[in-house]
Amino acid sequence: MKIALAQINPTIADFGGNLKKIKDFSSRAKAAKADLIIFPEQALSGYPALDLWEDPSFIRENERSIKKLAAENKDIGVIVGFSSRNKARFGKPIHNSAALLSRGKVAFLRHKTLLPTYDVFDEARYFEPAKSNLPFKFKGKKMGLSICEDAWFSEQNGTHKLYRTDPIGLQARRGADILINISASPFIRKKNTQRRKIMSAHARKNKLPFFYCNMVGGNDEIVFDGRSCVFDSRGRLIQEAKAFEEDLIIVDLERLPSPCAAQEISETDEIKSALITGIRDYLSKCKISKVFVGLSGGIDSALVCALAVEALGKERVTGVSMPSSYSSEGSIVDAKALAKNLDIRFFSIPISPLHQAYQKSLKDILNGNPEDAAEQNIQARIRGNILMALANREGGMVLTTGNKSELSVGYCTLYGDMAGGLAPLADVPKETVYELARLINKDREIIPQSSITKAPSAELKPNQKDEDDLPPYPTLDPILKAHIEKKWGIDEITKQGFPQSLVKDIMKRIDLAEYKRRQAPPSIKISPKAFGVGRRIPIARGSYLDDAP
Amino acid sequence: MKIALAQINPTIADFGGNLKKIKDFSSRAKAAKADLIIFPEQALSGYPALDLWEDPSFIRENERSIKKLAAENKDIGVIVGFSSRNKARFGKPIHNSAALLSRGKVAFLRHKTLLPTYDVFDEARYFEPAKSNLPFKFKGKKMGLSICEDAWFSEQNGTHKLYRTDPIGLQARRGADILINISASPFIRKKNTQRRKIMSAHARKNKLPFFYCNMVGGNDEIVFDGRSCVFDSRGRLIQEAKAFEEDLIIVDLERLPSPCAAQEISETDEIKSALITGIRDYLSKCKISKVFVGLSGGIDSALVCALAVEALGKERVTGVSMPSSYSSEGSIVDAKALAKNLDIRFFSIPISPLHQAYQKSLKDILNGNPEDAAEQNIQARIRGNILMALANREGGMVLTTGNKSELSVGYCTLYGDMAGGLAPLADVPKETVYELARLINKDREIIPQSSITKAPSAELKPNQKDEDDLPPYPTLDPILKAHIEKKWGIDEITKQGFPQSLVKDIMKRIDLAEYKRRQAPPSIKISPKAFGVGRRIPIARGSYLDDAP
Repeated sequence: MKIALAQINPTIADFGGNLKKIKDFSSRAKAAKADLIIFPEQALSGYPALDLWEDPSFIRENERSIKKLAAENKDIGVIVGFSSRNKARFGKPIHNSAALLSRGKVAFLRHKTLLPTYDVFDEARYFEPAKSNLPFKFKGKKMGLSICEDAWFSEQNGTHKLYRTDPIGLQARRGADILINISASPFIRKKNTQRRKIMSAHARKNKLPFFYCNMVGGNDEIVFDGRSCVFDSRGRLIQEAKAFEEDLIIVDLERLPSPCAAQEISETDEIKSALITGIRDYLSKCKISKVFVGLSGGIDSALVCALAVEALGKERVTGVSMPSSYSSEGSIVDAKALAKNLDIRFFSIPISPLHQAYQKSLKDILNGNPEDAAEQNIQARIRGNILMALANREGGMVLTTGNKSELSVGYCTLYGDMAGGLAPLADVPKETVYELARLINKDREIIPQSSITKAPSAELKPNQKDEDDLPPYPTLDPILKAHIEKKWGIDEITKQGFPQSLVKDIMKRIDLAEYKRRQAPPSIKISPKAFGVGRRIPIARGSYLDDAP
Repeated sequence: MKIALAQINPTIADFGGNLKKIKDFSSRAKAAKADLIIFPEQALSGYPALDLWEDPSFIRENERSIKKLAAENKDIGVIVGFSSRNKARFGKPIHNSAALLSRGKVAFLRHKTLLPTYDVFDEARYFEPAKSNLPFKFKGKKMGLSICEDAWFSEQNGTHKLYRTDPIGLQARRGADILINISASPFIRKKNTQRRKIMSAHARKNKLPFFYCNMVGGNDEIVFDGRSCVFDSRGRLIQEAKAFEEDLIIVDLERLPSPCAAQEISETDEIKSALITGIRDYLSKCKISKVFVGLSGGIDSALVCALAVEALGKERVTGVSMPSSYSSEGSIVDAKALAKNLDIRFFSIPISPLHQAYQKSLKDILNGNPEDAAEQNIQARIRGNILMALANREGGMVLTTGNKSELSVGYCTLYGDMAGGLAPLADVPKETVYELARLINKDREIIPQSSITKAPSAELKPNQKDEDDLPPYPTLDPILKAHIEKKWGIDEITKQGFPQSLVKDIMKRIDLAEYKRRQAPPSIKISPKAFGVGRRIPIARGSYLDDAP
């Protein structure tokens, strides 16, 4: 039996487009004499559809589409993820399901047992879990079919094991000949190593070949990295699909290939690919072709611009320099040099006349320090308004350029540098920004060296440096990571050698900036805990930091 | 036995302040010779604490605080909601719990059985449900203690009954003498009637007195309306606490009062109270004292300003008129008249000089129609920048003025009229805006009559009227309600007599505006489905509206 894994990039709610893609891949697999083709979790409608899963019309389209697909796909077995109705009277109205389509109809339905409900996942909000999930027979083989989280039964949640059961182990004990898992497993830096280990262990432990089909592509904040793979019954990797691209791989069950080496991709490389995929797919799935990036001459905006050019092509990217009287000559030169290196359209629009116009209009009211936060924010918001005007005029989107370190402590201006449709670096700490910039410059200088080496500055008042307002990034970043990603408290972080007052100050700044992040554009998740849908913090609140002993 | 219900307004994560409040109410109840005082669900930490429930330090503070409270409260039984650790090895690390504190210690712990995981609720994300929840004895009485959703076991989710079990009925069958439910049940217009019916039915069906203690106060988007109540064993209301205010009521179990009439509050009155509570608590819990409201002379901004004055007092509200060359004379006069009627600080800052400065700075780029969306948005964003500058200067907050009808179809400008910390009307349809304005003017003209009667206009180009760009509100609002709140599709709405092309157009506009709403400030929920945390829609997506037959 020849089995194909179709690692596709569906668009949420685009049933027409997704069906076409499924049929195209099925035709290619048929041409290669495959007996069965496997698509990812929720391939029919895209993942995560979120509250569209609660929309009766959306569920009807799911049903209509699966029937249509079944009727039209006669010469090959198809396993595909979609949402099916819960036929019981109780519980959530739908299941997160996989169908085996065979001979013009839905031959078997299997539902997901373990429903992730943490971080970016809300599956208990939408889906009723499977009661049982036994193997079924296709062409003489007993198939143990599971869905994504079913393979992660050993997942920990802090102090607790999340799940009591191992759905895949159960299928093996019930006589499965092969194991199949269809997934929509999001990218997180370095996660693939863990993923590969877990899937390999299922094969080895159950002494069965294991077929893992993952989704690929960006969906708002989430990027799926693909890397679907097949393991033999000793848990050895025997086939692996591409990272961050659609792919079709085919394995002959009777003549399993010999073990192969896994793709080696450095952490910085995979982050870069995730960001490029996230930008490209967000734009294409929003049906927007152009982006505008404000270029300050600094490293963040240079990196965003370079990533956008790789994602979209230089014709679709415009860099805009908006110097003020506080901008150094170097910043203006560096912005221009970057645009030249990338060969993109470039505008320079000085903001001093506009800043002066605001100062004049508000002179009776802003009668304080001309360099305080209110004045600094006016400048950032003038830039936001200019970029949005350009984007509105041409039907484009502004990419914001702030990084995770700044966003964590609120070192950014709402409606100013935070204005835009996508925030590519909002989950990228400053230290990683440097690594990515060096990677971009690996072969030739794209980001001007001086953008990388100079001290970071918002340039919103004379001689301003980030380090006047923030701890140095090599100190800030590890504290942010410990608190946000690892959920460590003051005591745990202080034990790592940081001064308690500094840790407390940073934790308070994180809390206070929540209102800004609530209005931030979507980011691209590369860490275990990104700001956005996976992190939900009340804004109006007290702080136990005041009470703690 | 005398039982007190303490309907309090805790602040999320303010353990010190909440403990103090709990002790104050307990002292008052003790002074009135109560044997037992009952506090709402999660009264110790506030609700909903969201991802703070995943923060180990936050859970430690919960434990520390409950022990402290138990140790200090010796002369009265206290039932109070908090988060306790799950002592099993599996599942979520905490329970949503209620403790009975008696004689200096935690005498009994009970956990919530039914965990709401829909709309604004994410309890399956955080809590492990109770395995069992039997009555316990206090001063000779067997108490059946349940938590919020446990009382809503008959809840429907579209086609399905959400829950299989009735935790309260089970407690009655296991010999409870009285039933107690502690809640944090959010306000939705007209929901209290349903809530009262459900609680009364528990008493009647189980032939037991029923004590229902609800939370009060605003927490970001959610307002709790209180109205805690007591029913006798025939299901008759015998005592009811205030709406939208803290309150303490005491009932003698041996001498139950005779039935009383429920408070009658009109739908418009309760919406008004919810909005005022939401504004007041958001400001106080964010520790911000002043608000700024842009006054266009229209009804929306007038209503927001009037509500803010009722919530905060006139000294804490500033109205800002920012006329442009497209503003009618009437609009300028109406804005000023409103400020005069409310006796608030008032600024007038014409935006024409700023608009001209942008036109000059962008003349090479904005070489198209001077009245298109890009130009209109520039004006709205100048206003946003001015308001934010004022708020930044004085440490205040901008209230946005857009209503739900506009936000639904994207008839609003990101970073322009959407700029602000709270959007009081973002869940209020235009038709309800009119009702609220008439209510505000019940005794004397506060909102100028011409603001109410004139045709709505954004005044961003000459002679612009909302109805040039949108269907009339009496047509738009019912379609929006059907699609957003009732989740009806094209077919169901068309059957109500609306043209199919119009329905489809509006549904598409709703979808396309999702990117704006993602960056909107929090609203105040008054409907079954508000934009914000309770409605989660992907931005980058296709549309089944294109495929549907």
